[in-house]
Amino acid sequence: MNHDFKELAQIYKNALLQDVIPFWQKHSVDWQQGGYFTCLDREGNVYDTDKFIWLQNRQVWTFAMLYNQLEEREDWLQIARNGANFLPQHGRDSDGNWYFSLNREGKPLVQPYNIFSDCFAAMAFSQYALASGETRAKDVALQAYNNVLHRKDNPKGKYNKTYPGTRPMKTLAVPMILANLSLEMDWLVQSDKLENIIDITVQEVMSDFLDQEQGLMYENVAPDGSHIDCFDGRLINPGHGIEAMWFIMDIARRRNDAKLVNQTVDLVLNILNFGWDSEYGGIYYFMDADGHPPQQLEWNQKLWWVHLESLVALSMGYRLTEREECWDWYQKVHDYAWSRFADPKYGEWFGYLDRGGQVLLNLKGGKWKGCFHVPRALYLCWQQFEALSQRKQRLV
Amino acid sequence: MNHDFKELAQIYKNALLQDVIPFWQKHSVDWQQGGYFTCLDREGNVYDTDKFIWLQNRQVWTFAMLYNQLEEREDWLQIARNGANFLPQHGRDSDGNWYFSLNREGKPLVQPYNIFSDCFAAMAFSQYALASGETRAKDVALQAYNNVLHRKDNPKGKYNKTYPGTRPMKTLAVPMILANLSLEMDWLVQSDKLENIIDITVQEVMSDFLDQEQGLMYENVAPDGSHIDCFDGRLINPGHGIEAMWFIMDIARRRNDAKLVNQTVDLVLNILNFGWDSEYGGIYYFMDADGHPPQQLEWNQKLWWVHLESLVALSMGYRLTEREECWDWYQKVHDYAWSRFADPKYGEWFGYLDRGGQVLLNLKGGKWKGCFHVPRALYLCWQQFEALSQRKQRLV
Repeated sequence: MNHDFKELAQIYKNALLQDVIPFWQKHSVDWQQGGYFTCLDREGNVYDTDKFIWLQNRQVWTFAMLYNQLEEREDWLQIARNGANFLPQHGRDSDGNWYFSLNREGKPLVQPYNIFSDCFAAMAFSQYALASGETRAKDVALQAYNNVLHRKDNPKGKYNKTYPGTRPMKTLAVPMILANLSLEMDWLVQSDKLENIIDITVQEVMSDFLDQEQGLMYENVAPDGSHIDCFDGRLINPGHGIEAMWFIMDIARRRNDAKLVNQTVDLVLNILNFGWDSEYGGIYYFMDADGHPPQQLEWNQKLWWVHLESLVALSMGYRLTEREECWDWYQKVHDYAWSRFADPKYGEWFGYLDRGGQVLLNLKGGKWKGCFHVPRALYLCWQQFEALSQRKQRLV
Repeated sequence: MNHDFKELAQIYKNALLQDVIPFWQKHSVDWQQGGYFTCLDREGNVYDTDKFIWLQNRQVWTFAMLYNQLEEREDWLQIARNGANFLPQHGRDSDGNWYFSLNREGKPLVQPYNIFSDCFAAMAFSQYALASGETRAKDVALQAYNNVLHRKDNPKGKYNKTYPGTRPMKTLAVPMILANLSLEMDWLVQSDKLENIIDITVQEVMSDFLDQEQGLMYENVAPDGSHIDCFDGRLINPGHGIEAMWFIMDIARRRNDAKLVNQTVDLVLNILNFGWDSEYGGIYYFMDADGHPPQQLEWNQKLWWVHLESLVALSMGYRLTEREECWDWYQKVHDYAWSRFADPKYGEWFGYLDRGGQVLLNLKGGKWKGCFHVPRALYLCWQQFEALSQRKQRLV
């Protein structure tokens, strides 16, 4: 693989617009009852009709984002609207908390125990409000965002099974998603309030969850950022750490903070060194920081989003720093991911490979994989390579 | 492998008394703070000190059971006592519900969201009361047993995340464990009450959870026993179904119900046919009844308890019916399990293999694997082969 950024931009663009988006457009929209089917087998056939709120909102976000960023295509807006009309009506309890899942017709199945349902609702309706101009959508976005801010210190609320006081811990996912979400909300929220939230979250991630010495992101730490010697306290999720790093890299770029950009790139590279499977290739799903057996039986599996988030982080890191190590790692992850996850026969990407890189679940979507990580990463990588190719042209 | 039952009895006896029990005796007892360490690496080193209530109570049960059934060894009773003194003091909330986990010193970590913590407490303290003669232990057992009966229709209580009414479902684990638990309680509970509970649970398992046509046990069904087309409703856990079948086979034997014994043997054989990995050998962990991708990423892994419960079911089934298919399957599972799970180098059994049969987690114990399935199965298989070898002798 050479430095042909133009060709790379083209690969990502084609995959996005000629393969992945058409796949979801064709197979996933529930035109009858509203919302989307996300449980799609390899060929795109629906094998389950339950509607998981994370994925429903994420699909609204994807189609609205493409409409806003790429092209004002009426068919994309219509697909976003098919979720955006269905979801606020069925997706929330009387307190405005977003359920975890609904059945096909929209009746609640699983209670709102999960703050990320609200996060993805805020992201979705912010993009959709921008695309549609609907005031109602803006209200839904702001209500969800405020709910996230309100719930963030006790994200599971009454469904929290942790006994209070014995071993207080906080989790990386909350500030990490808040950093990304706040960027999504920037046109809706007062800028000083927003910058303040971003400051706090960046600070929390880069001091409390980052172990400076090891160069690793921990999933769970004590409230003061210290380590706790237990399963959760030793947990490393390399893909999650890498995703957090590109969220922060993106914030650092907007703030012209070259030092922070370089620090996030260092960390991406270090996490990859730690999380790469030197025997079979690919990035592990879960690891124990001290090398003990992790609790998660799926620890050595290779997941689509982990590799796609790494491609985003590495292409963005290379674009912002032009560091050669970044490029070397980009190539390594690119070769691994494109040759195993992408499915040229039926389109879209497989989600789950076993350690050896063989397909573990013969699906394109399920309870956790929908129309989100693949198109978002394809879009973002395309943009990085587009920028790199234009820079190169200017240099020629 | 031949029909040398005497030799087989010896293999199981030796593994139990010279390998597995000494392993736990040596490595797992927390003589300082009470209770047990269950997170043991391959060699037996402790890598985590949290105390998971299922496993704590199961270890009390194992040592008390050996004391009651095999030999009144003071060292075994002392180990059981080391848990039995620690647990009632630290393990329950003010309403008498058993927590899910404690830290090493006994402070609660995870709330009592799980009815099986109470189940295993009842089993443990029933055996321990029998071994020690302590009235206090009897009270703990009865209180836990009554708690199980009280909680069984809403096992997760306030931690239940299912939205009421949309899709009511019940789970096999509850009647299944109740059947086994009730046998354990037989010396403590009035016999007509007990027989009534057993009748109801056997009836529920064999009519509601059994799909007669497919010959499979479903993990979750509607309250009337019908199937629900969703992830949970399609779920098959072959090891669980097989374990349920030997619980019921054991009840049928006590009741001299040859028809029910034969039905449970048919089902064990049928579940094995369905759940056996014809490519790599071993029994899958989770399957979808309709062949769709299961939700569980660990679906194709091979777990110790699944194979041990199958050895119990097959040796018991063969002892009770002498059906040749039972013997053929016994041999197949025996060869697979003994050559891969048992660890002649450091003792005890590995818990988790990948699909190909390689060790997935280099441990002897963790959050879910403790001193229970291996010794219980070794003890029960030994007893089956002992009985078979005596029967053979009588025939000679």
